[in-house]
Order: sequence, then structure tokens, then C-alpha cells
Amino acid sequence: MTYELYYWPEIQGRGEFVRLALEEAGADYVDVARDEAAGGMRAMMALMNDPHNARPSFAPPFLKDGDTIIGQTAEILFFLGRRHDLAPREEADAMWTHQLQLTVTDFVLEIHDVHHPVASSLYYEDQKDEARRRSADFRKNRMSKYLGYFETVLERNPQGSGHLVGDRLTYADLSLFQIVEGLRYAFPRAMAAMEPKIPLLIALHGSVAQRPRIAAYLKSERRIPFNEHGIFRHYPELDGEA
Amino acid sequence: MTYELYYWPEIQGRGEFVRLALEEAGADYVDVARDEAAGGMRAMMALMNDPHNARPSFAPPFLKDGDTIIGQTAEILFFLGRRHDLAPREEADAMWTHQLQLTVTDFVLEIHDVHHPVASSLYYEDQKDEARRRSADFRKNRMSKYLGYFETVLERNPQGSGHLVGDRLTYADLSLFQIVEGLRYAFPRAMAAMEPKIPLLIALHGSVAQRPRIAAYLKSERRIPFNEHGIFRHYPELDGEA
Repeated sequence: MTYELYYWPEIQGRGEFVRLALEEAGADYVDVARDEAAGGMRAMMALMNDPHNARPSFAPPFLKDGDTIIGQTAEILFFLGRRHDLAPREEADAMWTHQLQLTVTDFVLEIHDVHHPVASSLYYEDQKDEARRRSADFRKNRMSKYLGYFETVLERNPQGSGHLVGDRLTYADLSLFQIVEGLRYAFPRAMAAMEPKIPLLIALHGSVAQRPRIAAYLKSERRIPFNEHGIFRHYPELDGEA
Repeated sequence: MTYELYYWPEIQGRGEFVRLALEEAGADYVDVARDEAAGGMRAMMALMNDPHNARPSFAPPFLKDGDTIIGQTAEILFFLGRRHDLAPREEADAMWTHQLQLTVTDFVLEIHDVHHPVASSLYYEDQKDEARRRSADFRKNRMSKYLGYFETVLERNPQGSGHLVGDRLTYADLSLFQIVEGLRYAFPRAMAAMEPKIPLLIALHGSVAQRPRIAAYLKSERRIPFNEHGIFRHYPELDGEA
């Protein structure tokens, strides 16, 4: 069965956390909105506006598996994790992995809101002053708190495996790879100062980047480059003093 | 087994979504930080700072059930839903309920950030101008989008039951009760204009309020009144023109 992933075609965004899991799993999938043969954006909008869909998702990404449509990034990953062995099978471990992913979700929203503190519906240029204020707090308090938290989780993993949960890769590891990658792009100065304090997270990022399927994906055209339309945006004025 | 709920003692906050589920379930629980006999805030801080906890939560609320500690509001509800019959048993229905709760989570964060668009670490008084700008967008675009979404979910429920999922109460219904209650407190003018457009949601709110255990809870001292320290804050200047 080929999965259909629905997400905005021009950005990595939240869809990227799903793409990384699909790629690592070697799963068959179509990135519908980016694929004219699959219907492209028209197909995505048709599904979003389908009045007969009894279980509409609030927003992309969503994943179609046969007749089932699953929304919310963390829930899609919960589903894929079980299906493709990217999460522990044991219940408490599976829920702990999901809990970490929900914290990634919170972090991603905060990262987005650094450049959009007033309204998603406005351009960045219309909220630059507010964004500058928010970025100072983000760099000083929030980025270090979240990254420090995940570093602690790696430190305290009784398996000492370099993975967040147990002794094997989970979708949460893939998501943390993306977080480090994105923060390096968006806040290179702040991350350079931060990295010595989070050695385990940086090592995890490196080990994920070297996994054969992930390495191949990152080099492929399927990986959309970072840009100033997504979650991780590089605006030097939000990255602190040189 | 008595559950231990850990949450900030002075506010409803995110903990309230958990309290409503525990109350509706008639579950035995201690609200630790509010209960000196249970250790109060000292016990909560000790658990948060325990260096031997291999699975720390990023932030309250978290729920302790014997040796298991579960964090993230939506995940706590997923756990309680299964344990106390506040969610469907069938897998796809259980996941759909969880998906709705994750959208409630997103909504709650946006509601909070209306009064804290710059930084949680600053006072509201230090970000009033930004909050006023954000509140205009929130009232115009976001509140109606989220509430309209949940109204659509109620409309399209094939069971036509007045519940979000299937034909029985779930924790997601309890959370939507709290959303309506909170928005009425925080944005009475905006909600008065909105309510005629969301009749099913308003009916759901009414039916939850009348459930015997919820009604008893709302009248009890266990229900903390809304105040200007929580998620739902009444600042008239953020509620639009009279």
C-alpha cells in the first residue's frame, strides 16, 4: 500500500518530521501536493475541503493510508512508529516516545512563533519589531530550556545508547535531528554558542545524518531546502549580536 | 490506586483538562501541589528536579500512577481515556479522539499566547501593545477557525450524537466544555458574537455542564476560579470594541 502524504509543497515545515520517518522506514509514499501526477495541490485542497470527510484534519500534514486519514504530526508518527518499527513495542516505552514527540511539537510551535509572534496571517515584515523582542527571549530562555531537556533525556537513558528511548532509533530521534538541523540554519550564532552544552544531542544529530537512507534522502531532490517560508527561517536580526 | 496529579496550584491551566477527566471518571486522585498533606509544592518541585527520574516531563501537568509518570496533557488524557472508559476502545476511534485533543492543545497554546505574544517569562504589562495586536488577529481569524472546526466535527459525526466522537462522552468533549467556558470568561464580547455560529458546540458545553459529577465538581472548592494568572485571562482591552 502506498501512503499519501499531504503537506504544503514549498516548505519542509511540519511535514518534514513525517517525511524523515517515511524515508528511514523505506516506505512507499507519494508527496501528493508536490506531485502533479498524484493530483498536486488541487488534490490536497479537494481533500481538505471535502464536505463528506467525517474526520477532517485541522491542518496539514495528514497521511492517507487506504481509507484512513490521520492528522497531527505527532499522531502520524505514533502510527508510523508502530507500523515500521520506529518506536518501541512495549506500551510504556511507546507512550514515553510519544510524550517526547509532543514536547517536540510544542518546541516547533515556539520556533515558528519567533518570526510570527503577532499573527501567522501577517508577513514577517509586518511584525519585525515584535519578532526581535521575542527572539531575544527565545534565544535566552526557551531554546536552551528545550535543548537542555532533550540532552537530559539522552543523559538519563538507562541504556546509554545515544538514542532518546531504549537502545534503538525511534521517530523521536529523527525529529531531534531535524530540530538541530533547523536551528543551525535559523540561528547559527546562537546554536554555535549552545552546541558545547548539548554534546549528546549533537552526536545524535550526527548519527542520524549518517544513516544510509537518511543520507540518501538529504542529498535527493525530495529534501526541500530550508527557506524563509517555513518554520526555520534565517533572519540574522533574530540571531543575536555578532 | 490513588493517582497523583502534579500541576501549579493557583490556576486551572492545562491541569484543568486532566482534572475534568479525573472528576468525570470518579477517579481517586490527589492534587499534590494544592494539598499540604500530600507534600504541596515542595513535593512537586522535588519530583521535577529529581536527578534520578529517567523520564522527566518537560513541564506540568504530569500524572503519577504508581511508578509510572505520564506528562503532556493530551497523553495523560489518552491514558485516562482508556483506563476509565472516556474514549472509544476501537483503535481508529481512539486515535481520532486523540487527534482532536492534539488540536485542542494547539488551540490552548494560541489562546495563552494572545496575552503573552513576546515571552512567557515577562509580565502581561510588559507586552500589552503586542498582545493587543495579536488579540485582533486571534479574534478575527484563529478563534473562529478553531471553533468552526470543532463545530464541523460535531456536524459530521455520523452518529449525530452531540458528541465529538461516536455516541458517547469522551475526554475531548470535556476539553471542549473547558474551551467554551474559558473563552466566555476571557473574551465575553467576541464569544457573544461567535456563539450563534456554533450551536452544536454550545449544546455540547451545556450537556457536559449538567453531568452530575461535573456539576458537583464545578460547585466545589476543587474548581479553581478563572483568574489573570492562567491561560484564559479577562483583559477587556483584548476583547475588541464594545
